[in-house]
Amino acid sequence: MSRKRATATSNTVKERHFSTTERRRLLLPRNNNPWLVKNLFGLFLLSLLTTVAVVKFFTFVQQPSYNAKAMSSSGSKILVYGGRGALGSAIIKHFKAKNYWVGSIDLANNEEADANILVAPESTWVEQEKAVLEHVAKVLEGQTLDAILCVAGGWAGGNAAHADFVKNADLMWKQSVWSSVLASAIASKHLKEGGLLTLTGAKPALEGTPGMIGYGMAKAAVHQLTKSLAAEGGGLPKESSVLTILPVTLDTPMNRKWMPKADHSTWTPLEYVSELMEKWANKEERPASGSLVQLLTEAGITKLVLA
Amino acid sequence: MSRKRATATSNTVKERHFSTTERRRLLLPRNNNPWLVKNLFGLFLLSLLTTVAVVKFFTFVQQPSYNAKAMSSSGSKILVYGGRGALGSAIIKHFKAKNYWVGSIDLANNEEADANILVAPESTWVEQEKAVLEHVAKVLEGQTLDAILCVAGGWAGGNAAHADFVKNADLMWKQSVWSSVLASAIASKHLKEGGLLTLTGAKPALEGTPGMIGYGMAKAAVHQLTKSLAAEGGGLPKESSVLTILPVTLDTPMNRKWMPKADHSTWTPLEYVSELMEKWANKEERPASGSLVQLLTEAGITKLVLA
Repeated sequence: MSRKRATATSNTVKERHFSTTERRRLLLPRNNNPWLVKNLFGLFLLSLLTTVAVVKFFTFVQQPSYNAKAMSSSGSKILVYGGRGALGSAIIKHFKAKNYWVGSIDLANNEEADANILVAPESTWVEQEKAVLEHVAKVLEGQTLDAILCVAGGWAGGNAAHADFVKNADLMWKQSVWSSVLASAIASKHLKEGGLLTLTGAKPALEGTPGMIGYGMAKAAVHQLTKSLAAEGGGLPKESSVLTILPVTLDTPMNRKWMPKADHSTWTPLEYVSELMEKWANKEERPASGSLVQLLTEAGITKLVLA
Repeated sequence: MSRKRATATSNTVKERHFSTTERRRLLLPRNNNPWLVKNLFGLFLLSLLTTVAVVKFFTFVQQPSYNAKAMSSSGSKILVYGGRGALGSAIIKHFKAKNYWVGSIDLANNEEADANILVAPESTWVEQEKAVLEHVAKVLEGQTLDAILCVAGGWAGGNAAHADFVKNADLMWKQSVWSSVLASAIASKHLKEGGLLTLTGAKPALEGTPGMIGYGMAKAAVHQLTKSLAAEGGGLPKESSVLTILPVTLDTPMNRKWMPKADHSTWTPLEYVSELMEKWANKEERPASGSLVQLLTEAGITKLVLA
């Protein structure tokens, strides 16, 4: 077929006037569009790839990220896991006032921190481990930390007959144990010899907690983790200490909001905990590694009692 | 346009002979197929739905399922969580020989059981809860259980510096705690008053377990769960007992395979555990609810020691 002939034909076609029915028949013989049939699989594949690309894009923008100011090689350095929470924020404010370099790990940035590492809440535990370890290594550039303070956590109730028993137990595990374990993994790699790792347990979990079973299980796991890390072969740097605080109730804005009529003089002030952390980070009055340290507050005075 | 005119037109078209080029131009003006343009979004949506349908189908065929023989309303009934494992299989054989009705929950069927409920390993904890509770309710048809024996579990090692620290901790949590919590949820709904729930802890987790941190945390959580369930308001039926066994090493084929040179006379025989479960199910020699019962075997003799 010559090119000329084809062009002539198409011109002819272009100039013809088809009725609507004609046009339909000519342009689209129903169930018999050869291009469509030939390319149906390709079209399907294209749509599939588009879907995957869209999903990947949204996953990507949610990826954990980090940002950090230039780091001095001198001076003391601490990392706060849960640096955006009430206790974490108080600790960061306290240590910044004492001229520490402070890094924060949380779901959102703490603007007072020198470095922020964000955790993607929808990631698996292993994915969080990979991302967090990578970002901490990049931020620290080979330098070691004086202390890693894990104060991430949360609270949810429910006994075995509760409709949200499993859902809440799952949440408690993620908030308290995932964070504590990741802080321990960071400590095994980046804590200096003789450094400090603190975790956050709960005094009620030393016994049964029938009204908040998931919470109790998670905190009991953190208590036992403390013993494992302190024991020979637990994987922490030489002469480092692991200490777990067991508060009853912390004096946070949220607790004040939800329990306005409680006796606030038995709640432990956040500034007390921040000062305690600073002392321990400076190797002052550190209890034996592996200790579970109850924070018992009465009439505004807090006593430390080993469990 | 009359129907007659349209028919005539299409007959005309049918009889014309187009050249290949003509046919291409007529049937498919490239980049200008109005049907395609008009329906591109529809096509995309169709492909998307097909994809979703295919994924859903494969998810569906993996869904947990159950099968059960007709159930007598008389006689004693027990449910074994982990009925396909070494200990679970021994327990089912033992109770079947004593003419109990026995249900099994596991990843695979136990052919000796009267009913099998399969758990989908890829599901989330909450999805497993929903599926397992639904299937147990269908199998039991309103009848209650004399005992629920949770013997699911596993073992993996690793300290805080181990490459698989988080991966193994995650696995241990799922194998020991997911199963124990789901068994507790079943107990809150289907255990009879005065019935028995047993869980499986581990003696080493009473202290630190530096070489197997994830295992220790999961078992410590099961120990604390035991205390919560036994306490007032834990959610179990009236006068029921929850007892957790704390073995050191069970005499299973796998343990014999991996530790062929160990002193097997200190390992606890599975038949001993099965008989213990039967006694407790019959309310014989039950320790106080909430007890952690260590199984200490020496020279082939096992003693029970409360932790």
